[in-house]
Amino acid sequence: MSNDNNVICHDHQVTLADREELNGHKGCVIWFTGLSASGKSTIANVLDHKLYQLQMHSAVLDGDNVRHSLNAGPGMLLDTHGESFSKRFGLGFSAIDREENIRRIGAVVEIFCQAGIITIAAFISPYRSDRDRIRKKLGDGKFIEVFVDTPIKVCQQRDPKGLYKKARAGEINCFTGIDDPYEPPITPELTLKTVNNTAESLADEVIAYLRIQGLIPAVK
Amino acid sequence: MSNDNNVICHDHQVTLADREELNGHKGCVIWFTGLSASGKSTIANVLDHKLYQLQMHSAVLDGDNVRHSLNAGPGMLLDTHGESFSKRFGLGFSAIDREENIRRIGAVVEIFCQAGIITIAAFISPYRSDRDRIRKKLGDGKFIEVFVDTPIKVCQQRDPKGLYKKARAGEINCFTGIDDPYEPPITPELTLKTVNNTAESLADEVIAYLRIQGLIPAVK
Repeated sequence: MSNDNNVICHDHQVTLADREELNGHKGCVIWFTGLSASGKSTIANVLDHKLYQLQMHSAVLDGDNVRHSLNAGPGMLLDTHGESFSKRFGLGFSAIDREENIRRIGAVVEIFCQAGIITIAAFISPYRSDRDRIRKKLGDGKFIEVFVDTPIKVCQQRDPKGLYKKARAGEINCFTGIDDPYEPPITPELTLKTVNNTAESLADEVIAYLRIQGLIPAVK
Repeated sequence: MSNDNNVICHDHQVTLADREELNGHKGCVIWFTGLSASGKSTIANVLDHKLYQLQMHSAVLDGDNVRHSLNAGPGMLLDTHGESFSKRFGLGFSAIDREENIRRIGAVVEIFCQAGIITIAAFISPYRSDRDRIRKKLGDGKFIEVFVDTPIKVCQQRDPKGLYKKARAGEINCFTGIDDPYEPPITPELTLKTVNNTAESLADEVIAYLRIQGLIPAVK
């Protein structure tokens, strides 16, 4: 028998409200979703920097960094953990592996949010059901879905890592927008258009939203 | 071919030093290790509360909470993610599953530490190699290993969740200290004795250590 059911949740003595009061803002998750090369990470980092300048407490989680540690692929686990381990636990890019990728990230952003941090997540997160599951878990007003709406044609022209080129050549597979679907949000809190807009101005749109919602203080 | 090797680390614009300056303390990980019912979570939460009162920015990750989300068992994933998913990704308590449990937590505490947070982790974390891997990854001075050194006899007497009783009766298996090994730290930063000491006084020992190391400010 597994001892799966023998774990019990602890009540922490410091509440989220306590931490939010200390920080001077609410804990929340700003979830950027969009195609590869749509501009998610760039806007996320500019937003993080602007929040820092406002003395807010923020953190960035993005696909590239998480894929090197929390959700590392088999190849990255081989040296440190051995073959059977890397085979069993390494994450790839199949539909089920993508679901687990986003599920774990959802669990982490929830812990950050509970710590009162403005948590900025930038992941392709192609499946609507995966994003909606996190929204439901975090509760109303805590999950701010930001659709980085860049046409795939533009993403393919940018292609800073040459991934679209490789995907089209069949050198990599399960690539979102090429041979794996992207499901855009139906009612995101914000939609950002990166064509003819700077990352700075788009980050400012997010900040304006946070102010309106009372998640960060209004301009003094 | 997998696209495992096509992810690149981003440099965040806000550095750890920036965040530490904003917070008024260093980012670090206080890692409590010890047997079930040794007192890890209790001391962790008291420490968290004391740090909060000092206006430090801290967060608690503990085995019980993480086992409900990030590292959920198969049974917990069944309803939300279906059978094949829960079978593939649910974590149990075998040696390899425990290794993955601590590996993921190590990745998460690293992200918290990089966000400048005093990250308090309370996990049995029975295997020395798993803890040492996190220490190595975080670098010198960032990983504070705290051995909660409670004799197993005392843990078995406490047994607040009745787990030792179940383990002895063979109702659960792979239970640390009963039919799974616990490897105590060889040179932990701190060793706390819970017999004849209160959680308050032990948390104060940790705080004194943080002050001496310059991780939090000295008493004004």
